[in-house]
Amino acid sequence: MRPALRFLLAARQSELHGLEQLSHTCQFVSLVGELVHALQKERGYSILTLCQDRADLLPALDAYTRGAESGEARMRGFLDSVLARGSEQPGRARLYSCIAYALYRLDELPDLRWRVRQRKLDAQGASLAFTRLVSSLLAVVFEAADASLDAGITRLLVALLNFMQGKELSGQERAYGVMGYTAGYFTEAQKVQMAEFAAGQQRCFEVFGECAPADVMPAWQQVQPHTEKVQQLRGMARQTHAGQALDPGLAELWFELCTARIDAMAPVEQGLADTLARQCAQRIEAARAERDNHRSLLDQFAQHVGGQSPAMLFNVQRRVLDLPPEDGVAGGIERSMLDMLQDQAARMRQADQALAQARGALDERKRIERAKWLLVQKHGLTEPAAHERLQRAAMESGMSLAEVARQVLDQPAGRR
Amino acid sequence: MRPALRFLLAARQSELHGLEQLSHTCQFVSLVGELVHALQKERGYSILTLCQDRADLLPALDAYTRGAESGEARMRGFLDSVLARGSEQPGRARLYSCIAYALYRLDELPDLRWRVRQRKLDAQGASLAFTRLVSSLLAVVFEAADASLDAGITRLLVALLNFMQGKELSGQERAYGVMGYTAGYFTEAQKVQMAEFAAGQQRCFEVFGECAPADVMPAWQQVQPHTEKVQQLRGMARQTHAGQALDPGLAELWFELCTARIDAMAPVEQGLADTLARQCAQRIEAARAERDNHRSLLDQFAQHVGGQSPAMLFNVQRRVLDLPPEDGVAGGIERSMLDMLQDQAARMRQADQALAQARGALDERKRIERAKWLLVQKHGLTEPAAHERLQRAAMESGMSLAEVARQVLDQPAGRR
Repeated sequence: MRPALRFLLAARQSELHGLEQLSHTCQFVSLVGELVHALQKERGYSILTLCQDRADLLPALDAYTRGAESGEARMRGFLDSVLARGSEQPGRARLYSCIAYALYRLDELPDLRWRVRQRKLDAQGASLAFTRLVSSLLAVVFEAADASLDAGITRLLVALLNFMQGKELSGQERAYGVMGYTAGYFTEAQKVQMAEFAAGQQRCFEVFGECAPADVMPAWQQVQPHTEKVQQLRGMARQTHAGQALDPGLAELWFELCTARIDAMAPVEQGLADTLARQCAQRIEAARAERDNHRSLLDQFAQHVGGQSPAMLFNVQRRVLDLPPEDGVAGGIERSMLDMLQDQAARMRQADQALAQARGALDERKRIERAKWLLVQKHGLTEPAAHERLQRAAMESGMSLAEVARQVLDQPAGRR
Repeated sequence: MRPALRFLLAARQSELHGLEQLSHTCQFVSLVGELVHALQKERGYSILTLCQDRADLLPALDAYTRGAESGEARMRGFLDSVLARGSEQPGRARLYSCIAYALYRLDELPDLRWRVRQRKLDAQGASLAFTRLVSSLLAVVFEAADASLDAGITRLLVALLNFMQGKELSGQERAYGVMGYTAGYFTEAQKVQMAEFAAGQQRCFEVFGECAPADVMPAWQQVQPHTEKVQQLRGMARQTHAGQALDPGLAELWFELCTARIDAMAPVEQGLADTLARQCAQRIEAARAERDNHRSLLDQFAQHVGGQSPAMLFNVQRRVLDLPPEDGVAGGIERSMLDMLQDQAARMRQADQALAQARGALDERKRIERAKWLLVQKHGLTEPAAHERLQRAAMESGMSLAEVARQVLDQPAGRR
């Protein structure tokens, strides 16, 4: 077969493989999402248990643990197929590293559970350990999504990632709030932290709202009444101080209202994952049909000119076929081939454009991460301290976090 | 083996495969560079032949043609190994499409040569056809370079790409100048075009100078005296007009001086390609050593805990081993593993940061391309007209082309 055609087909084949891999990745993301959901619950209830020190809470905690364990088992069961599909491929190093790190944190989980039950660590410590685990899992999801190659699918992934991030902030808010409610009041520092959880959720859900498909919006509407109830307790928390303590029993109400809200989010996440799976399947089908179309066109071509390239029909000094090739049947196929090549180039340009737009939110997050680690590296800050410095700079300058990050990254090395 | 470790090793393996593929790609880029160099000469001499209509030029043109033909044969000979190495991989669709398109254009070359010798097209037409072919080959190089995964290597690729682009503009300037010198003078429009060729070269060679390694600078110094000579003839061209024509014989001198300059560039390009190959080989060796290190560490781990994960040593209610794992030998290995995971994460963050900086020039070029095609799409402009519009906007506003492109892309869809 003429080499140009072989590469044309190979391009379609590679695209198809990429879509199949993406579809497989999306299944994995769904499983990680379910595990994260279960861990978020277990985290919240572990904090509640540690704060309240009541033996009657233990059976419910054990049930949450079993839920997370079965989510973990499902995700681990899928992992073999992840390695099988891509272990020889370049460009998977970041994803595999993230998975290795998340698995390392998962391996610590039984010990963490044991220490929670033995009261060998406080609520703050448990919250930190669970949050570190969840963020290692979310890092896997973000990394997996980075391989996207279709604008529509990237848009859905951006919606899903932001939704998962917003949901995780809701989970952190739930766990953190339990501590304040158990104490009966929130310190000023705690109030600032609670406000940041709420603001972070809003940003994430806004991006979700911009990118989400219409068919998940009804499920998202179902979350709103729960948000309003949580909002009331948020307001109550803001008005507390050491001299004006609330009933510690409110901690359980706070936990329940937050849990009802977060549980209502799960169908939205599932709906997004379903839409994603559907869209992947459609794109795969389309790519397969197109590849087969190309194949049949190329077979025609091979029949007409015996697979010879025009380079073999002409030479420098004379033309073997004196008619220009544009006039014959082969010429028509030649034109079709140029059309195919140009269509493909145009399609990829459009995809680049659309991808760059859809990736906006992803790239922003990357920029913020890069700026944060630059501060860690330059000033020897801890990760949270670097994040706080960025946030403070954003607040003081009235710029978004992403704009501040861009400024940090754009500064010449000496002035950071 | 414990899954976290399997993914850790798989990450190293994937990185290694990526580096091997990159090294292979760099060899391909070298071959494309040699072919482009030969085609640039053939283009220049074809234009000279068409402009001057002298039979005594034909033997030299035939020699240039043979040079390009053997470069083409070498590149085509390498193509099979390109497909063999990655045909099943996702993420190669863009590269393969570019190769398919370049091969399509290469297939047209024998016909183009025949038409040049039959004088079936004019100098302008021949220049356009050759330039379209060369830019399809440069597109392959840009696409191949886009897969980079190491900051040092990306920096070298950015130097190489900008150098190739600058050299191609020198080649276009040579061909275009032949037309003006043959006529004896340059029109105002031609003078503007000549100035753009010179300015474009300067931009490309500036970026090259920022990113190039020290060991190619002596070869680059050798180009300077040639540039000064070309500069004199550029000055002469600017002072011509219809009423003040030069000796058409200067066309040959212009061709020779430009050719001497462009030939002097070839060792720089070759030096960059050699440095690139060396750096790839070093990185591959380092990655291999690191992977083997990891393997031996993981073997130790397997010996000590029989490959069991800590998750199997603890459970929720009690601890099988009552000593915390940090105290034993296995604990030491456990810490080593966390160190490895964290080292790997830190290294990837640093690579991301360095890559983002090294890619600056690449990403700018992409942004300009995207902005151009957006104008094509929105306003039904031709590609050159869109490019001209961007350039005019840059000149009028005093901004760089990249800044104008960013503004075009940032505008909401309705206002472009």
